[in-house]
Amino acid sequence: MTQYIYNFGNGTADGDASMKNLLGGKGANLAEMASIGLPVPSGFTITTDVCTQYYKNNHDYPAELKSQVAQSLSKIESELGMVFGDHDNPLLVSVRSGARVSMPGMMDTVLNLGLNDQTVEGLAKRSNDARFAWDSYRRFIQMYSDVVMGYDHHELEDVIDTLKRRKDYTADTDLTADDWRAVVTEFKTIVVDFPQDPMTQLWGAIGAVFTSWQIPRAVTYRNIHDIPHDWGTAVNVQAMVFGNMGDDCGTGVAFTRDPSTGENYFYGEYLINAQGEDVVAGIRTPEPLSDMQSTMPDIYTQLSDVRLKLETHYRDMQDIEFTIQQGTLYMLQTRSGKRTAKAALKIAVDMVDENLISKAEAVQRIEPESLDQLLHPTLDPNATRDVFATGLPASPGAATGAIAFTADLAEIWAKDGKPTILCRVETSPEDIHGMHAAQGILTSRGGMTSHAAVVARGMGRCCVAGAGAITMDYKVKTLSVGDRVFNEGDIITLDGGTGEVMAGEIARIEPEMSGDFETLIAWADEFRTMGVRANAETELDSQTAINFGAEGIGLARTEHMFFDADRIQKVREMIFADSVRGREDALSALEPMQKADFISVFKVMDGLPVTVRLLDPPLHEFLPHGDKDITEFASTMGIDEKTVRDRLNQLSESNPMLGHRGCRLGITFPEIYATQVCAIIEAALETNAKPEIMIPLIATSAELKILRDLTEKTAEAVFEKAGKRIDYLIGTMIELPRAALMAGDIANHADFFSFGTNDLTQTAMGLSRDDAGKFLPDYVDQGIFTHDPFVRLDQSGVGRLINIACREGRETKPDIKLGICGEHGGDPSSIDFCQQAGLDYVSCSPYRVPIARLAAAQSALKHKAHVEQLRKVG
Amino acid sequence: MTQYIYNFGNGTADGDASMKNLLGGKGANLAEMASIGLPVPSGFTITTDVCTQYYKNNHDYPAELKSQVAQSLSKIESELGMVFGDHDNPLLVSVRSGARVSMPGMMDTVLNLGLNDQTVEGLAKRSNDARFAWDSYRRFIQMYSDVVMGYDHHELEDVIDTLKRRKDYTADTDLTADDWRAVVTEFKTIVVDFPQDPMTQLWGAIGAVFTSWQIPRAVTYRNIHDIPHDWGTAVNVQAMVFGNMGDDCGTGVAFTRDPSTGENYFYGEYLINAQGEDVVAGIRTPEPLSDMQSTMPDIYTQLSDVRLKLETHYRDMQDIEFTIQQGTLYMLQTRSGKRTAKAALKIAVDMVDENLISKAEAVQRIEPESLDQLLHPTLDPNATRDVFATGLPASPGAATGAIAFTADLAEIWAKDGKPTILCRVETSPEDIHGMHAAQGILTSRGGMTSHAAVVARGMGRCCVAGAGAITMDYKVKTLSVGDRVFNEGDIITLDGGTGEVMAGEIARIEPEMSGDFETLIAWADEFRTMGVRANAETELDSQTAINFGAEGIGLARTEHMFFDADRIQKVREMIFADSVRGREDALSALEPMQKADFISVFKVMDGLPVTVRLLDPPLHEFLPHGDKDITEFASTMGIDEKTVRDRLNQLSESNPMLGHRGCRLGITFPEIYATQVCAIIEAALETNAKPEIMIPLIATSAELKILRDLTEKTAEAVFEKAGKRIDYLIGTMIELPRAALMAGDIANHADFFSFGTNDLTQTAMGLSRDDAGKFLPDYVDQGIFTHDPFVRLDQSGVGRLINIACREGRETKPDIKLGICGEHGGDPSSIDFCQQAGLDYVSCSPYRVPIARLAAAQSALKHKAHVEQLRKVG
Repeated sequence: MTQYIYNFGNGTADGDASMKNLLGGKGANLAEMASIGLPVPSGFTITTDVCTQYYKNNHDYPAELKSQVAQSLSKIESELGMVFGDHDNPLLVSVRSGARVSMPGMMDTVLNLGLNDQTVEGLAKRSNDARFAWDSYRRFIQMYSDVVMGYDHHELEDVIDTLKRRKDYTADTDLTADDWRAVVTEFKTIVVDFPQDPMTQLWGAIGAVFTSWQIPRAVTYRNIHDIPHDWGTAVNVQAMVFGNMGDDCGTGVAFTRDPSTGENYFYGEYLINAQGEDVVAGIRTPEPLSDMQSTMPDIYTQLSDVRLKLETHYRDMQDIEFTIQQGTLYMLQTRSGKRTAKAALKIAVDMVDENLISKAEAVQRIEPESLDQLLHPTLDPNATRDVFATGLPASPGAATGAIAFTADLAEIWAKDGKPTILCRVETSPEDIHGMHAAQGILTSRGGMTSHAAVVARGMGRCCVAGAGAITMDYKVKTLSVGDRVFNEGDIITLDGGTGEVMAGEIARIEPEMSGDFETLIAWADEFRTMGVRANAETELDSQTAINFGAEGIGLARTEHMFFDADRIQKVREMIFADSVRGREDALSALEPMQKADFISVFKVMDGLPVTVRLLDPPLHEFLPHGDKDITEFASTMGIDEKTVRDRLNQLSESNPMLGHRGCRLGITFPEIYATQVCAIIEAALETNAKPEIMIPLIATSAELKILRDLTEKTAEAVFEKAGKRIDYLIGTMIELPRAALMAGDIANHADFFSFGTNDLTQTAMGLSRDDAGKFLPDYVDQGIFTHDPFVRLDQSGVGRLINIACREGRETKPDIKLGICGEHGGDPSSIDFCQQAGLDYVSCSPYRVPIARLAAAQSALKHKAHVEQLRKVG
Repeated sequence: MTQYIYNFGNGTADGDASMKNLLGGKGANLAEMASIGLPVPSGFTITTDVCTQYYKNNHDYPAELKSQVAQSLSKIESELGMVFGDHDNPLLVSVRSGARVSMPGMMDTVLNLGLNDQTVEGLAKRSNDARFAWDSYRRFIQMYSDVVMGYDHHELEDVIDTLKRRKDYTADTDLTADDWRAVVTEFKTIVVDFPQDPMTQLWGAIGAVFTSWQIPRAVTYRNIHDIPHDWGTAVNVQAMVFGNMGDDCGTGVAFTRDPSTGENYFYGEYLINAQGEDVVAGIRTPEPLSDMQSTMPDIYTQLSDVRLKLETHYRDMQDIEFTIQQGTLYMLQTRSGKRTAKAALKIAVDMVDENLISKAEAVQRIEPESLDQLLHPTLDPNATRDVFATGLPASPGAATGAIAFTADLAEIWAKDGKPTILCRVETSPEDIHGMHAAQGILTSRGGMTSHAAVVARGMGRCCVAGAGAITMDYKVKTLSVGDRVFNEGDIITLDGGTGEVMAGEIARIEPEMSGDFETLIAWADEFRTMGVRANAETELDSQTAINFGAEGIGLARTEHMFFDADRIQKVREMIFADSVRGREDALSALEPMQKADFISVFKVMDGLPVTVRLLDPPLHEFLPHGDKDITEFASTMGIDEKTVRDRLNQLSESNPMLGHRGCRLGITFPEIYATQVCAIIEAALETNAKPEIMIPLIATSAELKILRDLTEKTAEAVFEKAGKRIDYLIGTMIELPRAALMAGDIANHADFFSFGTNDLTQTAMGLSRDDAGKFLPDYVDQGIFTHDPFVRLDQSGVGRLINIACREGRETKPDIKLGICGEHGGDPSSIDFCQQAGLDYVSCSPYRVPIARLAAAQSALKHKAHVEQLRKVG
């Protein structure tokens, strides 16, 4: 018989922390906590397998499940001496979701389950608090009718509001036991089919949790966080404990270290006489945990012991939830705590110093993509700040954008390329898409563990939470503090590091690597086997690349230099020349400029390799296109407009991506490539550069042979004139499927291959990057693409071409240098592919160099055995 | 020691006909003729290896060559009792090129070699004809100075013209021995470095022949005829025999059957008292061979014996050259005769009837591409013909075009898509490119074996030769017969079957298969293993396909139907609809029209399979683009122009080839595909059709799964409504590299694959068919592409993708149906690739169906063993 249920509590458990795939994160950690002797309320976990089968079998459960649930429920009853549905001493349970990885607030939860018209009386008697019992019962009806039965929660809330108005109450706490009893009576006239049978309630709740796996906000969350849709969720059924049975009760959440800075102190919040939901939802602003030392010193000591035990046991920072019921501490959850990138770095480095983890583990602990948070500009500390409010520094970073009061608006503006700050009283899971679209999030209510704060940190979005001085009026679309009023669309700036909210835009400064960041990335380099280069062609970008640890330039695009105002005219003259001679004249004016560009880059790179790609785009990209520009250009050139328009027509292409560009220009106009090679070699002779000359868009080995000959002939002529020579390489982009398939041939003429995965993706998939926007979102939504293939390499299709090219290129030339210079070179998952393919280096934008260094190190650690084998074969 | 020289003559030979690669066609056949006892003047062949080494070693010969030449020359001297360079009895030789395959007139020839100031006297004495000797000598100087020394031949011709004017001569025959002697004296003052030493002459001529392999006209000829540039030529050195030593002398060329019709009679031409060059160059119009029965009956009988001996020996129609020297017949050449497609068919079929060859040999004898000549429209016999001249029917077919007097103009106009007739007094090898570009060729001088006639037949161009009534004036650019004057650019029509030249354009009629053509293609079908389908979507095209033996339709493009005047409006309404509902309304108006289209095609195909491709092009292709059209459309639709232009902008794409098209439309607008599927299935239910529904542009198996589900759901709904069902298939184009690489996955949802090699070539090579025109000719010229990859499949690159897809598709689904529907499906070399890849069928344009049937049969014969093995494994 398959075991669909794993029990825990009373100091033992069927499962453990290693069983996250089967029990979900929450279930596995409840089991682990129980087995290491922490006080966990008894309960059981229904496995994720049941969820998978539930969806496979048209929402049916396995036959054995019913009896297994009954058995486990009996176990809890006997452990606690309470009985589910018993009128005198009723067992109440919570029913919660729990996937492999935490999806906070995304799926459904039902508390106080087991209450009905009879058991509520038993609860009142046992707790000696009728008000608490009826309050719990009405909460349960509200939650159950909403989550399980799909009622509109506003209707029930109206009942309470009406009663409060009628009785002139101002707060919920004003309601008496009888008031709540009356509310329940009223509720039952609305929720007419509310089930009184606790077993019916239980199966309803289990079904609701499984169903919630597929609700839109959960699907969106998984898409954003790359969580596979087929993992499914587990269901945790656990005896209820109550933090709201009086002032010796309470509830809280805590982190074993500061999740924002990583500092090593006990960080958390709690509320006395409250249910856990009150803390997480941000409805009441909780007290800092440190206060508990005076309010509940015994509990605080117990909690501190738990903290120590958990960190030693898990060897990682933990995020815990606890409840105190009438003076007894219960642990409801522990999990690896979400943290900012800054905190992650500090915690990892500190834990190595504390001998808790090894350097290799520290390197593997950091999500490379999260470093992006630290690699964006921050606010200039010297800039004048017009601070009009301050909230909690809930997620670091700085953001400037237009005020948007709804998630939908933030998303619309983001699509138009307009930066926004999503401004909400508090956020809810329905706002996820807007939080993702916005540059920053501002709330006027809620703490450091409120929904807004937790989600923003996970996304790496800047967030200021609980800025209580701010009044948001969604109706008139204003945000005000005293008499300062801002309208929707006004620009504001957030500083997630200080919690400041400022009017207008504030100057920002470049990020740099230092402290823990630098330490950890240096450790990463100890494990890394692939090189990391940057894509750069200006002195500034090259310097940024060097600052971030780039080991060379993997792609310097020469056409960017051609667009400069002082050159474009000469470039256009070259295009309009109708003879080789005319082109050569224009080119000879460009040559010293190109040479100067290369000298400035080569000097910064100081002997590191620099891959220079010869002219790539079709010539029409350099021509004027607007009417005004055409007129102006014609007059500058002293030719008539018709001639300009004729040449434009002649050069225009149906599909420029597949047109007369790349090496095809070099074949048709060898003088262009010769001039560029001349400039590169001359510049290299004047510096100690190692140029790697790259020919783009090769489809056949014959093209490369012709252009290699041209390059060598040109270089030799420069050497002869200069009376000295330097070493240089000649290679090609592999960016066409045919080039990958013919790599064995092409390698005969190439010292290196650099995979141009942007174009390789476009051609292999027949997908224009410029045009795909119209259907790509549909494609990701419908699961046709798991990711945008321009962001994450399509490993099965495009990746297969790369593998073929690597294998066959090396068969021809074992020491051929292999790299990648498409934007995938900065994407951690694609970097992992590159490691497996056996590339020598990746190249990415300068700001992503640290991310690539870390990702490459992680990948090397992951594939150590594989790499060692490759080296041996190689 | 390597044997660089092969001797022949005197009834024996070192080589034989099988050694064409080494000896060239001419050399091998001279050896073969000598060894079967035909009268061949003694000589020797320098192998093609020497040519290859000559180019490899910087125009140097192998060391041993000199002594081998001397030895072979001695052998000739002793056989003939003459001595090279001897003053009394000089041996004279011819030096001719000879590649593996005949390249008529392309390379250089030198005759009468060995003459100098001394030997000319010996020749005069021996022939007892001083005029003949001095005429020969001056001819030799002219030819040698032109071919070997690079002098301008006009300068020497001027000498003769001046003398003729001075002496008031009208023809060359008026010149006496002394006149020629004076001419020679004059020649030597111009060609001051003319070598008197016969050995120097010989080596000069050998070098000239090797060098002529690489002259531009020879390179062009090889490009046109797909002859590899690295084959090289052999050199044949042979004792001279003279057809111009008196009236018992003569020279001629003949075919063992009629090369134009294939009829089995002895066809040829000869001239009494002439050198062979006089016949080939078309300077004197020769007599038909049949006349020789009365003028030289003995020689005619000998020749008839030779004809019989050669056909029995070679089992093929032969093209022979002969010379009669003072009553003795000498055979100078035999080779497989070039013939029209019509003649080739008749000869092949006749030879099977005559038990000379087998059916399989007959099938392998016909060049599939040559059938194209027979598959073009011919002149309507009932149309009125304004015949203004008649020439020889030198190459069959009919052509209409503008008069072009130069090859260059014909080429320019051809590039503009303007049909031309190249009109020349006589053509020369310099005109090749214009003959290729023109629809037809008209000459006013020359016979059936003139340059124009031979080359035109080889190319399958219509040609009327020797239309003597026509005067061509290149200067004023007119062509006139009496008082009828035509200017350059005027339209004329040629009938290559009758030799008629007509004014204006004449109605043409469709070709059909019958007689020998039908017989041979029926034999081909006995050997063929691949199916042959046609690409067609109209009733007319489908009928043509059936007439030519198509076994189904491999590609019916549904968008062609959308462009019809009565539908485009509805299509545009569909595109402008801003809701699913609006699109469905427009589509429901289109559905009955599409259904009617399918019914008409299905009826013609009468139960044969029909592959229907769902909508493929991006929607913007259906919208109006010109200003006028936009205005008109906006008014018809009752919307303002701005709305139209906005939608146009919204839909416009940077690279439509890689844009929102194919199955991507089906994913975004499922209602479009559903409507089309509905029309197909409804039409099939009303006929006995076997529809194969094809989804275009699949890149991932997920796309195909979604659209297969949609197709099945739609079809089931139609079946249910109709109360009956039919069999149908669902499959996909493989036209993206990723689809080929993921074919194993995609096959899970496909009943068939059809390789869309047009798009697969575009994406695999990153080459836009619409834009490549700018550089593709350069690419072919520089040898980067051996052929235009859109005409002949790039087997190593694109072909590798097809092989991967076939193998992995069949691994998933062993009985998956595999076909090709790109234009390569009608190209013989690509068809051979398809046979090897194991495709089930090829599909091509209706007019190419017979070509594909023959090519597939030849390929099946060629790869018989391979195919049998595949079948066993499959």
